[in-house]
Amino acid sequence: MADKIKSLTVLDLRFPTSLNKDGSDAMNKNPDYSCPYLTLETESGLKGYGMTFTLGRGNNIVCEAIKLLSHLVVGQDTSKIFADFGSFWRSLTSEDQIRWLGPEKGVMHMAVAGIVNALWDLWAKKEKKPLWKLLVDLEPEQLVATIDFRHIEDCLTKEEAIEMLQNMKVGKEKREQEMRDTGFPAYTTSCAWLGYSEEKIMRLCKEAKAQGFTRFKMKVGADLEDDKRRAGVLRDTMGQDHLLMVDANQKWEVPQAIAWMKELVPFRLTWIEEPTSPDDVLGHLEIAKALNPLGIGIATGEQCQNRIMFKQFLKSGAMQYCQIDCCRMGGVNEVLAVILLARKFKVPVCPHGGGVGLCEYIQHMSMFDYIAVSGSLENRMIEYTDHLHEHFHHPCEIKNGCYMPPEAPGFSIEMKDTSLADYEWPHGKVWQRLISDGIYKLLD
Amino acid sequence: MADKIKSLTVLDLRFPTSLNKDGSDAMNKNPDYSCPYLTLETESGLKGYGMTFTLGRGNNIVCEAIKLLSHLVVGQDTSKIFADFGSFWRSLTSEDQIRWLGPEKGVMHMAVAGIVNALWDLWAKKEKKPLWKLLVDLEPEQLVATIDFRHIEDCLTKEEAIEMLQNMKVGKEKREQEMRDTGFPAYTTSCAWLGYSEEKIMRLCKEAKAQGFTRFKMKVGADLEDDKRRAGVLRDTMGQDHLLMVDANQKWEVPQAIAWMKELVPFRLTWIEEPTSPDDVLGHLEIAKALNPLGIGIATGEQCQNRIMFKQFLKSGAMQYCQIDCCRMGGVNEVLAVILLARKFKVPVCPHGGGVGLCEYIQHMSMFDYIAVSGSLENRMIEYTDHLHEHFHHPCEIKNGCYMPPEAPGFSIEMKDTSLADYEWPHGKVWQRLISDGIYKLLD
Repeated sequence: MADKIKSLTVLDLRFPTSLNKDGSDAMNKNPDYSCPYLTLETESGLKGYGMTFTLGRGNNIVCEAIKLLSHLVVGQDTSKIFADFGSFWRSLTSEDQIRWLGPEKGVMHMAVAGIVNALWDLWAKKEKKPLWKLLVDLEPEQLVATIDFRHIEDCLTKEEAIEMLQNMKVGKEKREQEMRDTGFPAYTTSCAWLGYSEEKIMRLCKEAKAQGFTRFKMKVGADLEDDKRRAGVLRDTMGQDHLLMVDANQKWEVPQAIAWMKELVPFRLTWIEEPTSPDDVLGHLEIAKALNPLGIGIATGEQCQNRIMFKQFLKSGAMQYCQIDCCRMGGVNEVLAVILLARKFKVPVCPHGGGVGLCEYIQHMSMFDYIAVSGSLENRMIEYTDHLHEHFHHPCEIKNGCYMPPEAPGFSIEMKDTSLADYEWPHGKVWQRLISDGIYKLLD
Repeated sequence: MADKIKSLTVLDLRFPTSLNKDGSDAMNKNPDYSCPYLTLETESGLKGYGMTFTLGRGNNIVCEAIKLLSHLVVGQDTSKIFADFGSFWRSLTSEDQIRWLGPEKGVMHMAVAGIVNALWDLWAKKEKKPLWKLLVDLEPEQLVATIDFRHIEDCLTKEEAIEMLQNMKVGKEKREQEMRDTGFPAYTTSCAWLGYSEEKIMRLCKEAKAQGFTRFKMKVGADLEDDKRRAGVLRDTMGQDHLLMVDANQKWEVPQAIAWMKELVPFRLTWIEEPTSPDDVLGHLEIAKALNPLGIGIATGEQCQNRIMFKQFLKSGAMQYCQIDCCRMGGVNEVLAVILLARKFKVPVCPHGGGVGLCEYIQHMSMFDYIAVSGSLENRMIEYTDHLHEHFHHPCEIKNGCYMPPEAPGFSIEMKDTSLADYEWPHGKVWQRLISDGIYKLLD
């Protein structure tokens, strides 16, 4: 039944996280977790919510980019969009004049993510299902129709994707029940940001263990001796049997990454994340060849711009852990393409969480991945950080170090009205206070 | 002597080129050549002009991105910037919070290009030299200090770059004189846009030959039989001895590119440009391996986002012609890095011209490349299209199919006041008429 989109509105929300050094790492010293926050409303009164994540300054640019695309969305019939979502997605990413500003990368692609994710929220609400369940229940042909295969057909065709999903129908009910019973394994990054003291790392690690976490990630890359000391503290506190990952946030040159990581081998690290530029497929491949024999895998993806970059990382062997992000690439549609590519090349998907809303988003993708695509939990885990969940109506739920499947219809991203009123930049109550106290200045 | 930047202003300029199908190709059917146009003014009253190129809608987003960066520029001392331009460049591309919106790609990177190119214009004017001459006259250490080597040091170090420039000092005066005498070879794309009829192609090709052009480029990729017919017309009109290139503007999948181009082998094509996604290094490599033995090289770069992508294309053999663009990457500083990388991997640089201002910009880079870096004209040529030059105070000058070195101080990008008044979107006189006539609508 026709139900046209009546309006698209977007708010510039920012949270002053830099005041506590939450999220600090070797490249991003003072992030203020932020998001353009979208509301789509249909003629029947249905609402869909979406967001895309930024680090503060420039969040307004993504808001403007969303407004630029809005004439392609408002007035469209949602039932037509959902019947051929792949074509609609392409109409946003390949608009004749706007495509030049990417193509399919950076600000414009993040804007597309915000819009299509709001549409997915709307679709799931229409079907009265959480998003993961909508995805799991779609027929393979329906699911694949949401994907734009342009520029990945040399590695994955539509037909191959359908066959892959067909073959995994066996055991779906059992895997769904398993998710409901025990959830999807998480790891935590909240214990060891670069700006945290050793005492804080120890305290937070103990607290996380008490909550059931057995997998931890630490930020590295600013100072080697400091990294060794902090890795020692964290390894000792967490215990020898558990998984420890490290993250350099693109800090290094290729040879430097290899040399630095060889010094950290004694701490038995599962992966090194973002050792160098996210654009450097061949550089990552060189690092992988040097470190894989030492037991260290390469993880990257949170700043990997689109399916075409992921295709190369996955096919070449440059990436041993595939870190999809729900709003860096062009939203769910493109994430689905990458989940299928990862399955084809037998690389486990370990999504990027954190920031604001990313954990809420990404849990849906991993639930779908396990139940309908990979059928395996081996080497798979979702990032978790414990910041800013209080702003969501349906925050993600962790039990015994696992994400539990969301039950509320939609994509879990709707925020509370009080949060919108407090954190809208620069007029929200919290910002007005921080600005009048001289803690923040208006620059843009 | 200290001379601080007092102000940065930016105008949204657009030209209604889609009305004539100028610039139409397989992916960009109706471009309206546009640019954010910047003016920097110092306390001493010196002015620098810069722009970055877009296809129309979304030009305002790049203008906003430039404004976002402006607090990093206004108040800075130009003499300090020029003494350590590489560090200043990094302060724009790696701003703590804003970097997330790229990094170093898309809208934000194009904004950086506009700003730093205006600074280069200012520097050249201060030295009372055209930009190419400023570059040629800089000592190797000075030139290399303008480049950020982050994430390319595995392929090119600062020391290697200095040595390369030192070694090419021999013969510089002779090559500079050669440029003044005969200029740098051009090829023309203006004869065979996708939307042009066969009659128009024949007429324009004859006119171009009469002006001394011997190298031509044709758009392909929409329909194979049509491509064959148009290639036949163009080849017959231009003659058998001259160079013919084709450009697919990213239209194809990897296997499709190989199959399609095999059909066009009889027309003896020098290169296929942008056969597939500009992000697909490994895809281009596969195409190169299939087509190089048939005498066809791979050209790409006009949408190659940064030095890190170029590094991979150049090192792997995926690119036989390196098509730098002055405002897709982060401006002159990054273009210099790519020119040096291309020299290292022995790949000729054939810049991307066209649009508005790109020819004016890019001629400076090729003059510098020939005189100070490559010392060779073999397989090297600059793209030329004959649109919109009339808006510039110092338009590029073509003689006998060659670009002649600009003599006016600066980067050749300053526009006439009447053009600014006519084409500012949406308030300029031309736009007000087109909008009131109902030919254009206000969307954004």
